[in-house]
Parts: sequence; C-alpha cells; structure tokens
Amino acid sequence: MKIAVYPGSFDPVTNGHLDVIKRSAKVFDKVIVGVLDNMAKKPLFTPDERVDMIKKVASDIENVEVYAFSGLLVDFMKQFDSAVIIKGLRTISDFEYEFQMALLNKSLNPDVETFFMMTDSKYSYISSSMVKEVARLGGGIDEFVPCDIIKEIDKKIKNGGHR
Amino acid sequence: MKIAVYPGSFDPVTNGHLDVIKRSAKVFDKVIVGVLDNMAKKPLFTPDERVDMIKKVASDIENVEVYAFSGLLVDFMKQFDSAVIIKGLRTISDFEYEFQMALLNKSLNPDVETFFMMTDSKYSYISSSMVKEVARLGGGIDEFVPCDIIKEIDKKIKNGGHR
Amino acid sequence: MKIAVYPGSFDPVTNGHLDVIKRSAKVFDKVIVGVLDNMAKKPLFTPDERVDMIKKVASDIENVEVYAFSGLLVDFMKQFDSAVIIKGLRTISDFEYEFQMALLNKSLNPDVETFFMMTDSKYSYISSSMVKEVARLGGGIDEFVPCDIIKEIDKKIKNGGHR
Amino acid sequence: MKIAVYPGSFDPVTNGHLDVIKRSAKVFDKVIVGVLDNMAKKPLFTPDERVDMIKKVASDIENVEVYAFSGLLVDFMKQFDSAVIIKGLRTISDFEYEFQMALLNKSLNPDVETFFMMTDSKYSYISSSMVKEVARLGGGIDEFVPCDIIKEIDKKIKNGGHR
Amino acid sequence: MKIAVYPGSFDPVTNGHLDVIKRSAKVFDKVIVGVLDNMAKKPLFTPDERVDMIKKVASDIENVEVYAFSGLLVDFMKQFDSAVIIKGLRTISDFEYEFQMALLNKSLNPDVETFFMMTDSKYSYISSSMVKEVARLGGGIDEFVPCDIIKEIDKKIKNGGHR
Amino acid sequence: MKIAVYPGSFDPVTNGHLDVIKRSAKVFDKVIVGVLDNMAKKPLFTPDERVDMIKKVASDIENVEVYAFSGLLVDFMKQFDSAVIIKGLRTISDFEYEFQMALLNKSLNPDVETFFMMTDSKYSYISSSMVKEVARLGGGIDEFVPCDIIKEIDKKIKNGGHR
Repeated sequence: MKIAVYPGSFDPVTNGHLDVIKRSAKVFDKVIVGVLDNMAKKPLFTPDERVDMIKKVASDIENVEVYAFSGLLVDFMKQFDSAVIIKGLRTISDFEYEFQMALLNKSLNPDVETFFMMTDSKYSYISSSMVKEVARLGGGIDEFVPCDIIKEIDKKIKNGGHR
Repeated sequence: MKIAVYPGSFDPVTNGHLDVIKRSAKVFDKVIVGVLDNMAKKPLFTPDERVDMIKKVASDIENVEVYAFSGLLVDFMKQFDSAVIIKGLRTISDFEYEFQMALLNKSLNPDVETFFMMTDSKYSYISSSMVKEVARLGGGIDEFVPCDIIKEIDKKIKNGGHR
Repeated sequence: MKIAVYPGSFDPVTNGHLDVIKRSAKVFDKVIVGVLDNMAKKPLFTPDERVDMIKKVASDIENVEVYAFSGLLVDFMKQFDSAVIIKGLRTISDFEYEFQMALLNKSLNPDVETFFMMTDSKYSYISSSMVKEVARLGGGIDEFVPCDIIKEIDKKIKNGGHR
Repeated sequence: MKIAVYPGSFDPVTNGHLDVIKRSAKVFDKVIVGVLDNMAKKPLFTPDERVDMIKKVASDIENVEVYAFSGLLVDFMKQFDSAVIIKGLRTISDFEYEFQMALLNKSLNPDVETFFMMTDSKYSYISSSMVKEVARLGGGIDEFVPCDIIKEIDKKIKNGGHR
Repeated sequence: MKIAVYPGSFDPVTNGHLDVIKRSAKVFDKVIVGVLDNMAKKPLFTPDERVDMIKKVASDIENVEVYAFSGLLVDFMKQFDSAVIIKGLRTISDFEYEFQMALLNKSLNPDVETFFMMTDSKYSYISSSMVKEVARLGGGIDEFVPCDIIKEIDKKIKNGGHR
Repeated sequence: MKIAVYPGSFDPVTNGHLDVIKRSAKVFDKVIVGVLDNMAKKPLFTPDERVDMIKKVASDIENVEVYAFSGLLVDFMKQFDSAVIIKGLRTISDFEYEFQMALLNKSLNPDVETFFMMTDSKYSYISSSMVKEVARLGGGIDEFVPCDIIKEIDKKIKNGGHR
C-alpha cells in the first residue's frame, strides 16, 4: 500500500490545499495530511482546530487521514511507514523553498521521496496568509476557502486568534 | 477620465517610486498615490508623514493626488471611480508577489486591472527598507531618495521612528 | 486620446491574446494590435492572414485596430502617435525577455512606456506555438483559440503552412 | 495497480534520467518510459536506439518498460491505463516549461496528474544536449551517462548522428 | 596583493560557507571573513562566538582572517584596503537579493567589485537557519556543519541561544 | 600571477562585455578574453573579426589579451595556466545557464573556479543578438556597442554576415 504524507501549516486550509488533497488521494492508496504544530509561526488556529477544519472539508474523501505533528517530518512519516511527501507548488518562490526542503528531507532520510504537484491555476494566488489578510480587512473569502469553514475563520479573526 | 491608483507603503518614498509616479502621470489623466496605513508592518513614518513627503516631492506634477488608506485596495479605488492599479516591478520576487496580489484584487473586483511598469534600471536596487538600513548604518542616501526629504529621514532615523 | 499598441507575432492569435486585447481596450481610448511581419521566425500564417484572424475575433470591440508591421516597434508607434506598449505576461521567462525589450525600446525612444498585464491564470499555459504543436499532433484546440478561427488553423496545419 | 509514465526525448539517456527512473519505480507499481519520436528536434539517435539504450541501463529494475511514441502524450498514456505523468526538474526554467506542459496535458485530459521529482543535486547540470556537446568537443562523458552506453554515444558522435 | 572580503552572518558557519572560504582562498592572496554584528536579526550566537567557530573550522587555511564588523560593509573593507566582495549563491532568491546588495555597495563605493561563486551543488540546500531548525527538532546536523562545531551548536540550541 | 579567462561568443562585443573586461582587469593580474569559435551558432562575424574588434575596443587596458578558441574551455585555459573563469550575469536566465556551465566545467576540471560579475544595470538589456536585430531593423546602436566598431557592424549587417 502506497501511503503519501501531505505536510503543511494549513492555517487555515484553503481551496488550493483541498485540491491537492483530492488529486493526490486519487493516485495514492492513502494520504496522511500532517498539520505542523509550529508555534514559532504564531498560527491563528490551534493545531487541533486546523485538524478539525481539514477533516470537515475532506470528509467525503475516504482514503484521507489528518493528524497534527511536531518535530521532524521524516520522523512523523515513519509512524505511517510512508516514504512519499506530497507538496503543492504555486510559484517559483515555492519551488525554491520546497526544493531545499526536499533535499534536506532526503539527507535526513534517503528513502524519502518528494513529489510536487502544481496547484490548479485558478488557486495559484491563494495562500493561508492572504485569506487571513483579506478577512481582517473585511473582504469576502468565499472564493478562497471551502464554504464549511468560512464562519469559523470569520469568528476567529474577530476574536484575534488564539495567540 | 482615466484614473489610476498607485498603492504602496512608501516608508519612505524613493527615487524609484517617484519615477513610477512621473511616468504613469504621463499616461493617465490622474494618478492617485495610495499610502497603505498598515501598522502590522511597523513603519518608520506615520501615514500622514508619508503622505506629506510624497506631496512634497511630487508637487510639480499636476495630475497627482496623495491619500492614506486602510482596508482593501479595491474599496479605496471605488471612492475615485478608478479601475486601474499601477505597480512598479524591480525583480522576479516583486513579480511573483505582485502577480498574486493582482489576481487577488481581480477576484475581489473583476473590473479592476493591474498594470505593471518596470522600475528604471538605475533604480532597480533601491527599496524603502534598504534606504532605512543604509541611513541607520551611517551611509549617505542622497542617490536613493529625493533630496527634499533626506533631512526628514535622517532626523527620524536618529529618533528611532514613531514606533 | 490615449492610444496603446499591443505588438506580437499572433501566429495564431490565442484566447490569451484576445483576453489582453479586451482588457486593455477598456483602459485605453484606442488599442492598435501590431502584427510583427518577422519572416526569420518562419510563421505558419502570413502577416495578412494573422491580421484577418485578429480582426475577425475582435470584431465586437469597437476601439481596436489591427495592422501588420516590419521594422522597429518604436517607428511603427510613431504613425499612431502612441507612446504606450501593452504586453501580456504569463511566466517568469516572459518577464525577463519582455523586461529587456522594454528597456531596449525605452533606449530607442525615451518617451515610450511599456505596461505589462498579467495573462488571466486560466490562459497561462497557452501559447501560439503550443496551439500549433497540439493541432499537429491531432489534439483539439477549442479551449485555446477563439472558435471562429479553429477551422482556419486546422486547414493550414494540414497544408503545412505557407513556408 | 498504479502505472506512471515518464516521457522525454532521452537523446541520449543520462544519469539524471536514470535516477528519476529508479526513484519513481520505487513508488509506482509500474513505470513506463515513453521515448518521444519527435523528428522536428533532429535527434542524434533514432527512437529505437534510444529505447534500446534505456532498456540496457534500466535492465535491473523489474517494473520498468520502455516504448517509443509519437502524437499526444495523453493518448499514449491511455494504452497503459495510466493517469500519472512523472517529470524530473533541475532548474527554474525546467519548472516553468514543465508547468505549462502539465496544465496543457490536464486540459487535454482532466484525469491526468503530473508529479514532479527533483533531479538529485549531483545531476543538476547534466542534460542530453550538454552530453552531446561535451562529447563533440572531445571531453569525457563518463560522469554524465551510464557507462554501458558511452561507447555507443562516442561512436554515433564520430559518425555525425542519423540525421 | 589582492584581498577579498567574504561577509555574512555565519550563525553558525556551515559546510557551504566553508567551501566558499576554501575555494576563494585559492584565488585571492588573502580572504577576510567578515561576521556581521547585526542584532536586529536576533542571532543564536554572539559575534565573538561566530568568529571563533569560523577560526576553528578554517584553521588549516593560511591566508584567511576572521573579524566581526558592524556598520556598512564598504567601510569595513577600507580597513583592509580591499575592493573585492565574495558571495556564495545557492538559489535564484539568493541571486536577486545579492544582486541588489552588490548594486547598493557599488553605489556606496564605485571601486568595490562583487564576485559571486556557486555553492557546490551538494551544499545547495544548507543554510544556517535550516541547521538551527533541524537541531531544534532533534535531527542530526553532521552533514551540514563542520564536525568541530556540532557540540557547540547542540549545546547552544539546548540553552536557547544568547538572546 | 592570477590569470582569469573571460569566454564568450562576442558576436559582436558590446558595452556590457567591455564593462566586464575593464572591471575584471582591475582585480586579476591578467585577463584572457576567449572568443569561442562555434560555427554551429552561425555567427555574423568570423572568430578573427571578433578578436580584432575586442582588441580594438580594449586596446587601452594593458593586462588584457584576446584569442579565439575551439574545443573545451577547460582545455583552452590550461594553455595559460589559468584556473579562473569570469562570467557576466544580466538576468535569471543567464544565471541558470551559467550555473550549469560552471558545474559542468568543474566536473571536467575540479581546479577550475567560476566567478560571476553583475553586468552594470545600465547594460542589463544589451546582448549581441539584440544589437544585431536592432541594426538589421535600421535602428541606431551607438548606445549598445563601443563607437569604434559601429561602422564595422553596420557594414557587415548590410552584407549579410560571413555565413
């Protein structure tokens, strides 16, 4: 069974992320979404909130599981006996950073392979930080995130996050 | 009447910015310089100070107006009945970020069009943050900013900004 | 009256080109589409055929005119008293090349200004050469070019072009 | 069974290509190497010679098959019931071109997914055209291609290719 | 005597940095490593600690000297009568930033010349910040930094740095 | 004595090339300009003509010598006991290609080091091919090439080159 891990901050999950989850779930037997519990980045949502949002929007995809993790990605992957990392690419800047991360992960565990998928062009300008910025400025975010979690984001923005 | 909006932080305005203002003012009937009042970026100058500096250095260009704004750029533009955003590009990194912003603004208001102008190559290495860095380290900034505002910048740097 | 020139090979015109024509025609009083008569590039269509195809697909936009030209772009622009070049950007590679061309044109005529527009993300992978390649390999091109000219392209491809 | 197709010119196959074949063969149940029979590119080797060279150097990988193809990639893939394209990326330029190809293939067949793998950094400067250039100039190519095919390349270079 | 200055934060020095030091020391008569004392970046190590680490790992290269500096790089260089800056490049992003810095330094002192060296491809994914991140997450860093300073880094990470 | 080799096609030499020659001649004891005799690129000028033009425009720089060469660059360098390659960079595309060439040369001779210099921003849009294109279209080239060789280029263009 081929198990792929799709890691990220998902603060919050966007339509672009959901697109990558759906498409990779068609190719791999199981896709583990790994929510990085990185407090240094001062996320808006707690890891548990982020896991719950992804579970909600991906509930109709059978072979997807969602967990939070801290520590090295390569250590997280060992729990699931997975050797495949999935990453979405939108831009050249993503490409450069993700390339370095892939080389780093390969040096930490040579068995691990990273596969890059293009973000669908209609999602290429969407990032979690832009979603938060637009919401803070009072703009509508219904084109950027799954509609199931719009209320949750708006509420959190009004309360200023869990920081 | 074609009205273009040129948004930015302008903290402080540089020779590169002034070049874009001059060149776009030749093409459009009116150019509105929009000074983004974004406190999250911890600017050195207050929005009012930045507006005043731009007014001073652009005082000889008749069809330019300068205002501070907060909130979404597309909302600011509606006040002036403008559907054209002007942005200067210096580098590939600018290009990527501004492309995403342009797509975002188009999704927030499909009538809005972003036009990119190249920064003149002799200004391609100048940014507001480098001006501040050089001034802080005691270097001369007279090649980077209009001479009318050098004293103002030096004074502010010595006092540590309005933060 | 603000007149912009949109130059290119248009061999053949694509949906991406048509999108730039439509959007720039909303901003400028008149848009001149300049079809470059560059035989060194061994085009599939003659300059006249390319002019006719653009006229056909842009027939519903009032303020657009289409002409072929050879020689320097800055000389072509003088005929129309135009000082604005419009270029569409799809990728970083476009950006680099077009930046150099813009600097070149500015050095040949300092009054000329180049404005870059982003190609809509849904057209970002379409280029004239890919359209020809796909048609040659027997693929459908109806998503890439205006439907009015599909027959013309298919016929020309079968006959091997005017080369 | 997950079947991936790895398309290319392979004129000739390099150590970088072989690395991608090996790594993708660990992840997918079967990897079909598709040798593009594109005469417009004036290849040095015939499609059959290229297929044979790949078969020779990949003979120890069980789940790899090699075929030549012409026409659209998405049509070639249907024969094998494959919906996954594998591409190796070395540089930003690769990235841009391959991104456009991936979007094109997705528009020609929405079920097809492209996965990008990084070329191992030690192969990042190797391309088929550089191998041929170095060999033509009399340099050694044993670091760039599998040793099994060095003689074949040297012989072909001396004879000036099949063109 | 040709004296080159290799400036940076070196927080901490990596195998990639050491590679650039070694290679430039073969070309220039003397190489001055300049450790930037920039507290705004919140370094993990004090400038003195960073100087000591570089001295330790470069102790076998005769024509290398290491000093901390604050203020403008061009002023630091004057002390050594040096007009050559050495910078290592790993990625496009490095390239853009370093290009702007080189132009800035040239405008501050027209006699100063910046030479860029490629980081060896096997070090292309290593940066000081990644070394610190991996060490914080409990990963091994022995492939990334000279072995002489691993203990020092691990100890500092455990103690949370000098901040 | 530190001897650097500056290789290229120089078809013809531009103000950008001359700028790199001048600046590298200040840093190295001797600069050898190597004119690549590559007939596959169908140059406008013969290698001898190109050598003569460079000699003419660099006649006032004492420590510069100019030779044509064919074969591998690393072999050409051995004649002069040189281990340093100088390359000018204008754009990201240059960067990528030159990076690959530098890695290739390092693999062909590990002692060889490539140093990259930025082309002065005022020459960043000038390339030999653009000079030829502008001259062919009847534009003035006096801003792009040293004035000593303008007549020579214009004459050659009228005669259609030595092809």
